[in-house]
Amino acid sequence: MKIVVVNPNSNQAVTDGISEALEPYRLTGGPSIECLTLQQGPFGIESQADIEAVTLPLRDLVTERADADAFVIACYSDPGIHVCREAAQVPVYGIQECGALMASSRGDRFGVIALSPASIRRHLRYLRQLQLIDRLAAERAADLSVAESGQGGDTLDRLVEAGVALRDRDSADVIILGCAGMARNRVPLEDRLGIPVIDPTQAAVAMAMGGLLVS
Amino acid sequence: MKIVVVNPNSNQAVTDGISEALEPYRLTGGPSIECLTLQQGPFGIESQADIEAVTLPLRDLVTERADADAFVIACYSDPGIHVCREAAQVPVYGIQECGALMASSRGDRFGVIALSPASIRRHLRYLRQLQLIDRLAAERAADLSVAESGQGGDTLDRLVEAGVALRDRDSADVIILGCAGMARNRVPLEDRLGIPVIDPTQAAVAMAMGGLLVS
Amino acid sequence: MKIVVVNPNSNQAVTDGISEALEPYRLTGGPSIECLTLQQGPFGIESQADIEAVTLPLRDLVTERADADAFVIACYSDPGIHVCREAAQVPVYGIQECGALMASSRGDRFGVIALSPASIRRHLRYLRQLQLIDRLAAERAADLSVAESGQGGDTLDRLVEAGVALRDRDSADVIILGCAGMARNRVPLEDRLGIPVIDPTQAAVAMAMGGLLVS
Amino acid sequence: MKIVVVNPNSNQAVTDGISEALEPYRLTGGPSIECLTLQQGPFGIESQADIEAVTLPLRDLVTERADADAFVIACYSDPGIHVCREAAQVPVYGIQECGALMASSRGDRFGVIALSPASIRRHLRYLRQLQLIDRLAAERAADLSVAESGQGGDTLDRLVEAGVALRDRDSADVIILGCAGMARNRVPLEDRLGIPVIDPTQAAVAMAMGGLLVS
Amino acid sequence: MKIVVVNPNSNQAVTDGISEALEPYRLTGGPSIECLTLQQGPFGIESQADIEAVTLPLRDLVTERADADAFVIACYSDPGIHVCREAAQVPVYGIQECGALMASSRGDRFGVIALSPASIRRHLRYLRQLQLIDRLAAERAADLSVAESGQGGDTLDRLVEAGVALRDRDSADVIILGCAGMARNRVPLEDRLGIPVIDPTQAAVAMAMGGLLVS
Amino acid sequence: MKIVVVNPNSNQAVTDGISEALEPYRLTGGPSIECLTLQQGPFGIESQADIEAVTLPLRDLVTERADADAFVIACYSDPGIHVCREAAQVPVYGIQECGALMASSRGDRFGVIALSPASIRRHLRYLRQLQLIDRLAAERAADLSVAESGQGGDTLDRLVEAGVALRDRDSADVIILGCAGMARNRVPLEDRLGIPVIDPTQAAVAMAMGGLLVS
Repeated sequence: MKIVVVNPNSNQAVTDGISEALEPYRLTGGPSIECLTLQQGPFGIESQADIEAVTLPLRDLVTERADADAFVIACYSDPGIHVCREAAQVPVYGIQECGALMASSRGDRFGVIALSPASIRRHLRYLRQLQLIDRLAAERAADLSVAESGQGGDTLDRLVEAGVALRDRDSADVIILGCAGMARNRVPLEDRLGIPVIDPTQAAVAMAMGGLLVS
Repeated sequence: MKIVVVNPNSNQAVTDGISEALEPYRLTGGPSIECLTLQQGPFGIESQADIEAVTLPLRDLVTERADADAFVIACYSDPGIHVCREAAQVPVYGIQECGALMASSRGDRFGVIALSPASIRRHLRYLRQLQLIDRLAAERAADLSVAESGQGGDTLDRLVEAGVALRDRDSADVIILGCAGMARNRVPLEDRLGIPVIDPTQAAVAMAMGGLLVS
Repeated sequence: MKIVVVNPNSNQAVTDGISEALEPYRLTGGPSIECLTLQQGPFGIESQADIEAVTLPLRDLVTERADADAFVIACYSDPGIHVCREAAQVPVYGIQECGALMASSRGDRFGVIALSPASIRRHLRYLRQLQLIDRLAAERAADLSVAESGQGGDTLDRLVEAGVALRDRDSADVIILGCAGMARNRVPLEDRLGIPVIDPTQAAVAMAMGGLLVS
Repeated sequence: MKIVVVNPNSNQAVTDGISEALEPYRLTGGPSIECLTLQQGPFGIESQADIEAVTLPLRDLVTERADADAFVIACYSDPGIHVCREAAQVPVYGIQECGALMASSRGDRFGVIALSPASIRRHLRYLRQLQLIDRLAAERAADLSVAESGQGGDTLDRLVEAGVALRDRDSADVIILGCAGMARNRVPLEDRLGIPVIDPTQAAVAMAMGGLLVS
Repeated sequence: MKIVVVNPNSNQAVTDGISEALEPYRLTGGPSIECLTLQQGPFGIESQADIEAVTLPLRDLVTERADADAFVIACYSDPGIHVCREAAQVPVYGIQECGALMASSRGDRFGVIALSPASIRRHLRYLRQLQLIDRLAAERAADLSVAESGQGGDTLDRLVEAGVALRDRDSADVIILGCAGMARNRVPLEDRLGIPVIDPTQAAVAMAMGGLLVS
Repeated sequence: MKIVVVNPNSNQAVTDGISEALEPYRLTGGPSIECLTLQQGPFGIESQADIEAVTLPLRDLVTERADADAFVIACYSDPGIHVCREAAQVPVYGIQECGALMASSRGDRFGVIALSPASIRRHLRYLRQLQLIDRLAAERAADLSVAESGQGGDTLDRLVEAGVALRDRDSADVIILGCAGMARNRVPLEDRLGIPVIDPTQAAVAMAMGGLLVS
């Protein structure tokens, strides 16, 4: 069994960070987990135009990879999720959707750390579509680019600042990282905040595994 | 790492069915999965009194098993979920909650097959509390006892009948088995319906694994 | 006709305060109102474990008192409400539920004064289950123990502080006392705030009387 | 203490039926209950124009009756409720609002029996404004005039027919009479249906008593 | 074709400001737009009593003006909207309703500038009835009388102050003027805020035109 | 002033039908209305893949047509609405959004006639995102292709059948045509149903005019 995780941006460092974060999910006897970079993708997905640019390439990839038993689209905007589901013979998981669902099993209200204010409105619109908005405590921006999101140092400090505000001012019980690129900061952020921090790509892979290991 | 799955009723056949359904989740390098029968539990949990009878024994068990890294309460009413979470140092997953969350990653609207009409009102009340009610297509009863739920033959026919109604009349995209005891019927029911069927205990174990495999 | 009001904690002073607050409801020709202390209850109900500890004793009491025409469970967490309703032949009223319903007849949005922050999350979960959460302006904690809640002086000052914030910052039109033990502070608090203050036990008894006086 | 109950239509037989239904609430030591007929009102309130015709006369009445400690507007459309509340120094209760609130203390979902289909849309609009619509199982019309509503025989049969549909098809746990004129049919209807039937005027008077008996 | 716009207050200056703001909608071949002052109306509609005072005069006007193809009730409280719709043979548009609908086509969340705090509660109640409340960012008061609302200078400054708060603190994408009298300030306010500002009377006339120009 | 209406499918007959339906909106002194066919579009937009195929071409068109003062995307799935709004300097209107908003000004609950069952799930998802789903009575499919939608005869009969069910079984007060291609059937359908029928492209153009005619 194989789960194909697609990073829709063309930043290989982001894909590497994702693959590293998924290492614990590669278990003997379990599904293999392959992480791909969408070559046609922009370097970072930061606008609606970036999203639209990858929907059909993702659909093509999903159609071509007939060996996959499940797909994960590893960008927090869940680009192309509906067209990929229409095209695929197997389940397709979006990381925003799965991050919100997994977080809902860990706390009453989840907070989200977004890269930038511009993405928050887009995320909220999608949570409304999913009818999961009532579980949202709040979403706050850390003012980072996709490229910065996987770094430490100042990036971690900004994530901590947003996380503390979500925890203390907005009463969030659990925090979701609002970008696949933030994966490497999950552990240190959770240590600093003292409440669960969800990497949405890990959440999506866990749910994909759950869907496969059912025989 | 160890996940402890507790069947709150004292019917060992139900525990055995649960453990069997979880066999695919026992992977080398992954968490061990131990299935327990709550000795103090009633033979089946079919009333609110049955639920209340197990909340404190579950809390005690959760407190005593300091070796567990996560707990799953394997009864669809999620008995004692709040008191166990208050008591435990580790995550506690309820199968109704996780069944609904996992199903939400597989379709727009989920249908639920309950044992009996009496349990539906209780389940709906809980879905409202979880604010997941808007994802529910409908819940229908198969008119079975807990003991009957794991059998084949007529039991499967009744599950199929309820599933067909949920799929065709209520537009459910995915079906949740509304009792841990139904696990053995997941595969044949999915074959008959042609849409995903979620065993909520499998869903909860997958989410528990997701919470543990985060390095 | 007889209404049995049960204080689920074993603090007789709380029961006495409740009974005193109900004195105006003891009318010639109307139902008698008997206030009981649940001997098996903890001294104060301040945790989920405290709640679970009283559900079955309450159920037993409700079953045994065949002379009652209605029951009121006088703890703001409405412990055991569902199991008591399942067991009783007569109506069972919870004070959180009735407090919210009565307050809804007095203003557009109600505010709640809780004993402690820890209880707020529990209360909100229940208001969501009741689908009355949209009438809530906000809930604020006065940081009091059950034992302190019935005292004056500093206790009243803290209630006033929370009430002023609910009225002025959260636009609450009416305030609910979020603990049966606060009953003695209802009149002075209403005097200080200038908007209606609801004692939820009085509210539940009024609704119980309404259910009985229907000939 | 005095509760003034105003029948906004000019049909004295309706007022008499209301007063008769309130007889059990007239208790020694409790508030007196005076039932008035609004002389300027139409013979039955069956249209939006009928409602608008009584709002200012009700406001005048509320202003003039300075001896009242609470008012109940005994028409299921709650005509003039906002202007009366603006004008009055004391609480003003609407029977649709109180019927829904009282019913919510007796069951998970309430059904409503309306006089005619035309009134249902108006009632639903108001329940949405009150944010109580989520507790509604359904509303069904019995196809009666205000004048017919208080009679027995065929009227009762039609109420039973609507009530059975609400109970069995719509899963209502409790029924609200959607017209003050139906009061005399409450007892026989409850006998026939076997679930609680709420007369909304009784509900409003019970809540008004609850607001007064607080010393 | 003719659209009759009724100003329900008797302040001719308000009617003149409305008519002036509608000048661009008077197109050759399009419907004529006639603006009327309701002579029986109060000088400003600032209370619930003011609203009730105009409902039946509006109904009479709507009934008498058989030459109209559509009516617009140009007061932000949408007084008499239901009774006018009941009476009229042609569509009747309320400006609060149309303002919220038109604003919803221009941004994700709309903010409203009310004259006074007292009117906010009334407006929110109505938005709940319309089930448009979820699109509301917030409503803030500019503390103006109806008479002041159409002036410039200090009035404009107060509108700007409220608008800035709605835009920056409440994340409103579009602003609605919460009084027909504010029409003359729409252009300068939009210039100052840099986001769309909706005059609700213009919105209602545009929607009325849309309903008429369908051949 | 100019409104550019884009038909995202490449079926010129659909564009012609749209332009014809918009003829009454072309008024002397008002904005000109230009109807375009998106040459790159598929012959009909009937799947999610069809939608994704037009999003960037629509964005390009919106960017290139600097002479437009407003755009209307004339496909009921509102393809590319978010990316076009991101790119455009002027307002962009989607016809599903405007159809629902305009219909909300004409009745309490709107019904929608979709081409096919497959499109209903997509439309509902979008109405949830818009938070307009609570105004929906129901959506029913007429089982037509885009090409058939503009014809008469059997097409009209199927629209009438769906419309009657929406009106009588689902209590819709107003009907929305769920495809731009149905425009030519608006008048005969309204005649047959006796309740308002909204052509969503007309609705969007009316709202665009409203946004332009503000001086």
